[in-house]
Amino acid sequence: MASDDDRGRVLSIQSHVAYGYVGGKAATFPLQLLGYDVDGVNTVEFSNHSGYHRVGGTKATAEELERMFSVMEQNGLLRPKRVLTGFIFGAEALAVVAHTVSRLLRHDPQIVYLLDPVIGDAGSLYVSPDVIPVYRSLLPKASVITPNWFEVEVLTETKIEDAASLREALTILHETHSVPNVVISSIPMEQWLRDMTPPHIRSAVRDSERSLLCLASVRRTADRGGGSAPSRSPAPAPSTVHAACVPFIPGYFSGVGDLFSALVLGHYRTSPSGSASPPNGAVDHTVADSDGDDDDDDDDDGRVSPSLPHAVSLALTKTHAILRLTERYAYTLPPDERTATDDELDRKNPERRVRRMRGRELRLVQGRKILSGEATGELRLLREWEDFWR
Amino acid sequence: MASDDDRGRVLSIQSHVAYGYVGGKAATFPLQLLGYDVDGVNTVEFSNHSGYHRVGGTKATAEELERMFSVMEQNGLLRPKRVLTGFIFGAEALAVVAHTVSRLLRHDPQIVYLLDPVIGDAGSLYVSPDVIPVYRSLLPKASVITPNWFEVEVLTETKIEDAASLREALTILHETHSVPNVVISSIPMEQWLRDMTPPHIRSAVRDSERSLLCLASVRRTADRGGGSAPSRSPAPAPSTVHAACVPFIPGYFSGVGDLFSALVLGHYRTSPSGSASPPNGAVDHTVADSDGDDDDDDDDDGRVSPSLPHAVSLALTKTHAILRLTERYAYTLPPDERTATDDELDRKNPERRVRRMRGRELRLVQGRKILSGEATGELRLLREWEDFWR
Repeated sequence: MASDDDRGRVLSIQSHVAYGYVGGKAATFPLQLLGYDVDGVNTVEFSNHSGYHRVGGTKATAEELERMFSVMEQNGLLRPKRVLTGFIFGAEALAVVAHTVSRLLRHDPQIVYLLDPVIGDAGSLYVSPDVIPVYRSLLPKASVITPNWFEVEVLTETKIEDAASLREALTILHETHSVPNVVISSIPMEQWLRDMTPPHIRSAVRDSERSLLCLASVRRTADRGGGSAPSRSPAPAPSTVHAACVPFIPGYFSGVGDLFSALVLGHYRTSPSGSASPPNGAVDHTVADSDGDDDDDDDDDGRVSPSLPHAVSLALTKTHAILRLTERYAYTLPPDERTATDDELDRKNPERRVRRMRGRELRLVQGRKILSGEATGELRLLREWEDFWR
Repeated sequence: MASDDDRGRVLSIQSHVAYGYVGGKAATFPLQLLGYDVDGVNTVEFSNHSGYHRVGGTKATAEELERMFSVMEQNGLLRPKRVLTGFIFGAEALAVVAHTVSRLLRHDPQIVYLLDPVIGDAGSLYVSPDVIPVYRSLLPKASVITPNWFEVEVLTETKIEDAASLREALTILHETHSVPNVVISSIPMEQWLRDMTPPHIRSAVRDSERSLLCLASVRRTADRGGGSAPSRSPAPAPSTVHAACVPFIPGYFSGVGDLFSALVLGHYRTSPSGSASPPNGAVDHTVADSDGDDDDDDDDDGRVSPSLPHAVSLALTKTHAILRLTERYAYTLPPDERTATDDELDRKNPERRVRRMRGRELRLVQGRKILSGEATGELRLLREWEDFWR
């Protein structure tokens, strides 16, 4: 079943928008291009993402979701190999999803569950605040979580402002919440972070350039999911950390996190053993993986690659390439379609925001060869950060 | 904008199912693979298609659809080059869709509108009967319609049982309802149809084999859409007919018509002149068209191909190949997952039907190279039926 053409089923529970690419619209097509059947349960059905400010549509109630899952189960249609959950507006609906995911995992503990705890960004909430405790209770079920910076802070109740608080937040996620794999796609490279990041990771971008850090942290003693360190290692560090620097692309783009999470899930391979020392730098430096040629756990030299950092490297590479494609497209638009982000001007003229949002919808269809891996490019490789925990 | 990577936007208004491939799930991925951005407005949100008999989910009300289109319009997001409408349950919802499509066409008469009048199949209705007059009122707006056999009978109130009634039904669609392009994907090849079909069309399948006829009828004096005959031709025949025979694949598969309609729309090119004699047999005999190499109006020898028959040839070829792939997959399932269609046994044991339906979901993801045109194969070419009208 797990041939290149047929990677099995992903149950994807997230938002649907008619126009543009966020939530399920950002996840489904990329996963299909990688060979997954995507069973899409829509938690909301909106005209467009909320960045436009004017939004039409409906939210599925907890009862409607319950009924949907119940009929799918009766028809034997809840048989995913992987589960992806994203935007779910309210706590009651999230509780139904949590219950369904728990049942699925009890039935098949091999299911890979990627939880994107969609809560908000840069200090503002997208969802009702009462989802936060439900997300915390879901964390131990996840194989991989992909919170953004702000979501890590909310989930761990830790303000991240230096090396110590970053370590503290990761420790809480791995130890208090038992999450085996934590991926943070983009942490702004502020001075304290630059100071702690080793040169072999920092060197991918110039020091003068604004940049972001992408970080993957694999718990050392994992109950579920593949870890990259020997599970009986006596090391006191809670996790093995890999990271990469990418240049910051200015402007507000929606759906980037949803795309990234889908690609992490799509590229993640659970290795049978789950134990091998990371062959840092041994991973093939292309992203030509659509046919699975360099997308398996084995590298050219026969060593087993750490599956999560490799998956994150591919997801980061493709997401960044799609963002660049979208940015280049936005530049070709007439001037009034590519206005700069300016909340003050937007308040005076809301159409300004709408035009900007429209011009910055992710170019997934135009970039389908990037997503499938046919268009090769330099891999943005996550490298091991050996002294992360000192 | 109409490069190979970027064919513009399709507004697709039809059903969504979480599991499997009918309606929007059968249309969206194939259109994305051909380079279209698909704006998907879901008329229903179901767990699975109705062939399973047990279905959960919600239907969008007319008010919800109205609000969705209204917000999209306010945000400037109703800017499709093409419109595809499929399953819409009730007359009120369909009236909202009809109103929206009419407004779009008034604003941009160049929009290609493919109307799949989803009413039912083989004598039974999928929808509320009061949609039928609304569909009739929509017919003159369509560039192309793709009814099945039963839907032609319902729309034209003509029982099709011989050459005369087939001609009568097509005349009603072209003349009474002003439809420029009528495509009927599969007419069972009964004796009367075999008798009237010329050998150069019939010869694609053996006489002993059960087969289906696919027929494309292009009105001779088209107001909208590309016709293949000179518009000032004095010929009395209402249309130019092209057809192809394909082998019948036994068993009930869902979503086939939805896939076919999407592919017809995706491959249909409106020629600037809309007038050229059909270079029958001059079309490239492969389906390797994903990069638009042989998918333009110009053939190798510089003649202009009839755009509708060419599009239908590609759609038929790909749909048939996907059906074959699905059939082959169904054979690999355990015996209890690939039970034969038998309504009597199904009534005694409804799980029997569910297992069969699950095993016959279209293999779109696994057949993505067929859909994109990368996997080449023999083109099932529609050939001109010169004496169709005698």
